[in-house]
Amino acid sequence: MELIMEKEKIIDRLMNGEAVYQQGISIDCVIFGFHDRMLKVLLNKFNVSDKWMLPVGLIMKDEDIDAAACRVLKKKTGLDSIYLYQFHAFGSTVRPNLKEHRDILLKLGLRDENHWIAQRFVSIGYCAFLEYSKVRIRTDGDEELRWFGIDEIPPLYSDHNGIIEKALSVIRTQIRIIPIGYKLLPEKFPLSELRNIYEAILGRELDRRNFQRKILSTEYVRKLDEIYRKPGQKPAVMFSFVREKCEEALKKIT
Amino acid sequence: MELIMEKEKIIDRLMNGEAVYQQGISIDCVIFGFHDRMLKVLLNKFNVSDKWMLPVGLIMKDEDIDAAACRVLKKKTGLDSIYLYQFHAFGSTVRPNLKEHRDILLKLGLRDENHWIAQRFVSIGYCAFLEYSKVRIRTDGDEELRWFGIDEIPPLYSDHNGIIEKALSVIRTQIRIIPIGYKLLPEKFPLSELRNIYEAILGRELDRRNFQRKILSTEYVRKLDEIYRKPGQKPAVMFSFVREKCEEALKKIT
Repeated sequence: MELIMEKEKIIDRLMNGEAVYQQGISIDCVIFGFHDRMLKVLLNKFNVSDKWMLPVGLIMKDEDIDAAACRVLKKKTGLDSIYLYQFHAFGSTVRPNLKEHRDILLKLGLRDENHWIAQRFVSIGYCAFLEYSKVRIRTDGDEELRWFGIDEIPPLYSDHNGIIEKALSVIRTQIRIIPIGYKLLPEKFPLSELRNIYEAILGRELDRRNFQRKILSTEYVRKLDEIYRKPGQKPAVMFSFVREKCEEALKKIT
Repeated sequence: MELIMEKEKIIDRLMNGEAVYQQGISIDCVIFGFHDRMLKVLLNKFNVSDKWMLPVGLIMKDEDIDAAACRVLKKKTGLDSIYLYQFHAFGSTVRPNLKEHRDILLKLGLRDENHWIAQRFVSIGYCAFLEYSKVRIRTDGDEELRWFGIDEIPPLYSDHNGIIEKALSVIRTQIRIIPIGYKLLPEKFPLSELRNIYEAILGRELDRRNFQRKILSTEYVRKLDEIYRKPGQKPAVMFSFVREKCEEALKKIT
């Protein structure tokens, strides 16, 4: 029953979408979280599909593209006022989503070569860093959300594996100039937590002392006058992000 | 006579463009050159228009967006295999080009609220660095090309002044990680030439010794075993870009 309702909803959107959505453009969101010493990415699966995919969305005709990306993210995670980072536009004519869109139309009995969805889509890639614990994972309804470690990502819909690779490549290159880890960690954290994130992104171990020196020289992070003690563990000095510096840097680059 | 032909060509493109071009997306190119100690940007003006603008283009339905950007650049400058750098997608619904497009339609007697050009366009911004002397400036035909110093840019068509500002802001932020100056200078150059480019982009003077130390640490530039002597001037040590390192860096970030 649920599947039939969902199918009707999809058909309705496909039939009437041409009047509502900007044609030929979509939003793909690469949402990173950090948990259990692993960098994770949030993936989405619709019940009608057998493949996981990035959270995606279309842009309404009267909607700014940045606003569309925020709307998609809010719908999927419930989170508001998230900093989204535009990292690349994907516009190859051999993007496999063209074939996949035609397959969906065929499956739904809407075979039509001139259908608005059966064309090359240019996709604007956005990425976001979210604190893992704040995202409400939904498992009910017609779609599912799940975190995957970046080493455990299955073959995804269309060219979404490549889009994640590109996001990682851009972040790795920009790691010296953007406040990596901001929004991935709680307000106060021991520096080892942040180093773990850098190591997960770069895929290699970093020297503890060098890391502290370099991070403090960026002005994105400051050392607090606070020590965290947990029984059985070494006491750890706590650190915190300098919010204004981080926001300023993100605004400049994106 | 020439103006009438041009008008006919434009009308033909407006009437038949819907079948040829991807709808609602365009390419804007911010092309930087360096001359007379000044960072310059290449602007374009059509005879029918009273405003200068960035070199722009549409994307054909069967064309990759990166290929479209290269085609636009080649058409305007005659230059092939230029490295184009995708820096931002502009997709606000209040972009002034909507009004300007409607004005053009009105002017040409094609008033039509539903015309394919009378909608919000999302624009993919590309930038390129070109060696000033290699660009062939065209002043004949139905359009004109001219270099403008970045402090001398007039009020441009649509939001193009803002697009140049954004390109500069992204470059200023990324100045530590991209090989600025690569393609702006001849094969061998005294380091003062490169420092001039950095100073023009950053809008401030840089310390000569610090600059040399920092530049050599990036691995993008190497010192040559060559001295350039010109009568009446101090002899200058020559430098050169390390091509592979520069290409690699540009590929990673864009």
